[in-house]
Amino acid sequence: MTAAERLARLRLIRTPHVGPVSWHHLMMRFGSGEAALEALPDLVLRGGAGKARIAPAEVAQRELDRVAELGARHIFSDEADYSPLLREVEGAPPVIVVRGDTAMLRRPCVAIVGARNASAAACRFARQLAVDLATRDITVVSGLARGVDTAAHIGALGGSTAAVIASGIDIAFPPENAALQEKIASDQLLIAEQPPGAEPLARHFPSRNRIIAGLAQGTVVIEAAPRSGSLITARRAGDYGREVMAVPGSPLDPRAQGCNLLIREGATLIQNVDDVIEAVGPIDTRMVREAAQTFVVASAAPDAGEGERRGVTELLGPTPVAIDELVRQSGQPSTMVQLVLLELELAGRIERHAGAKVSLV
Amino acid sequence: MTAAERLARLRLIRTPHVGPVSWHHLMMRFGSGEAALEALPDLVLRGGAGKARIAPAEVAQRELDRVAELGARHIFSDEADYSPLLREVEGAPPVIVVRGDTAMLRRPCVAIVGARNASAAACRFARQLAVDLATRDITVVSGLARGVDTAAHIGALGGSTAAVIASGIDIAFPPENAALQEKIASDQLLIAEQPPGAEPLARHFPSRNRIIAGLAQGTVVIEAAPRSGSLITARRAGDYGREVMAVPGSPLDPRAQGCNLLIREGATLIQNVDDVIEAVGPIDTRMVREAAQTFVVASAAPDAGEGERRGVTELLGPTPVAIDELVRQSGQPSTMVQLVLLELELAGRIERHAGAKVSLV
Repeated sequence: MTAAERLARLRLIRTPHVGPVSWHHLMMRFGSGEAALEALPDLVLRGGAGKARIAPAEVAQRELDRVAELGARHIFSDEADYSPLLREVEGAPPVIVVRGDTAMLRRPCVAIVGARNASAAACRFARQLAVDLATRDITVVSGLARGVDTAAHIGALGGSTAAVIASGIDIAFPPENAALQEKIASDQLLIAEQPPGAEPLARHFPSRNRIIAGLAQGTVVIEAAPRSGSLITARRAGDYGREVMAVPGSPLDPRAQGCNLLIREGATLIQNVDDVIEAVGPIDTRMVREAAQTFVVASAAPDAGEGERRGVTELLGPTPVAIDELVRQSGQPSTMVQLVLLELELAGRIERHAGAKVSLV
Repeated sequence: MTAAERLARLRLIRTPHVGPVSWHHLMMRFGSGEAALEALPDLVLRGGAGKARIAPAEVAQRELDRVAELGARHIFSDEADYSPLLREVEGAPPVIVVRGDTAMLRRPCVAIVGARNASAAACRFARQLAVDLATRDITVVSGLARGVDTAAHIGALGGSTAAVIASGIDIAFPPENAALQEKIASDQLLIAEQPPGAEPLARHFPSRNRIIAGLAQGTVVIEAAPRSGSLITARRAGDYGREVMAVPGSPLDPRAQGCNLLIREGATLIQNVDDVIEAVGPIDTRMVREAAQTFVVASAAPDAGEGERRGVTELLGPTPVAIDELVRQSGQPSTMVQLVLLELELAGRIERHAGAKVSLV
């Protein structure tokens, strides 16, 4: 990939209203970041907004320089080092920033996540499970949060572990994990979706959690509240067709409720590493495209006319609706509906939701 | 039912080598206890043993008298007071001895079983669950053992509860539960399969456990070791097509291992009474034959000849084999195979196993 193309792709994803899904649509339509950038102002205009606020080249170049200075690098989703499992996920990050050894992601990966305020027993369990997985050459993926995440990373340090953080790669959070984060970046693998300097904002966490779920063949949850980030990670794993596993606890222990709930919903009950191995089974190679995905321009892709645009727009409202449903109800080809939605999204008029749904903003 | 028939039926089941399955076969073949008793010596002879050791009339009469003296009574499996759910079970007891109010068994029944050495938390949980079930007019069935069973009965005393014991109805075990057993017999329902005076021998417990499972629409297990009587009860419930439910616990708690194992095998994870209600659902009336079963003599049921007998016997060995398999391999009608097996069992030459299997003794 040329330096110009890398820069263009990075500008594209750092542009407001360009999310992972629209980034991929743009790449599929225009075949390169450079062509997509060029087409963007026109698309935004058709979507009903004024001037496109494209991320300036200087900003993207500054990010590239800063990442290099930190001993890190960008990996785009069609590059060989990108996790093949993560690549399969709808809304996979177009680019991630990494420090460390990406070979970790070529091994079987299992995520361990759980409560920040976990009990000492849960942390001990997480640590031992990570030791046992690492001993079997399985990479332990987690989020470097307090509690279970920290215990899991520490347990796997003798083998391999990958940490996905909600901030930029140069920000340590929580502060007490700064040394551990540095150690993982040096000897293991540290991954960030946000650009350097980004603070770990609340809205980054669900996004970070989807990466943890997407990297792993299965996610083990240890002590989690019914409405917690760990359960979001578990549900994403389920959405992605990955194994969802949970460690049970007494109904009298409030910290066990999230895990027990998951098990009631069909997650596999986990008591030890053998249960995890049995659940994730051998790698299903059908899930992993070994060759990196490339962006091929769809040949006959006409622009959307005013009629098509109105036909789709009229079906939208503040309640998220499935794109499949829009295709059915509008009577238009799927590619045309996707194109109109792309324009509307770039113009900041619609929002994408999990499960391929959209709503007016 | 005449007094003579009651006496004959009781003699039949108290006769050595007559188990619940062969008792039913005898009743189906001969239509009454009196006719079956009369036919028994001949059957035993054909089966290859010498003289039949039929339970003497005086012994059975003494049992009837003793049961009356205790304020208890016998209920045969085709009588209206017999539990319709228990009646459906393969190998249901031909007769039970009860004290108390059999109306308890006409309500929805849920069994709660668990460890004798349960934790205080588990006992508290069992007791509260029983309170909550009793409040909803559900009868709590258990086995009056120490620990979870005791807690469940105590919790349900304000509503309805049925206790199934492994001894005769006049023997209290464990001794510290004597007062509770008496209270249940007076105000609730106490059930024994063994005749009065029978001590709670180890071999009676699995037999008692099948009754607990058979009486209930579902069985909840709270704290149980992987090889425990509670797990036998749960597996019987599963065999009978009833709901198997288990309360989870931390993998670090050895007392939770049996329940976690059950959940891994497909038991429903239970955290509270609502989970139980959801699992057992409304009573499936198809499971319950409202009319009591009657014993109808199969019209054309020829005796077994020497050839038929040898054909079946040759297929038997010390390893349990399915009766269906014997029918297939012998090429003989199912009724003929059953008759030969009945003769062999009465002669003490074969043993019946769960899942309709038999082996040579």
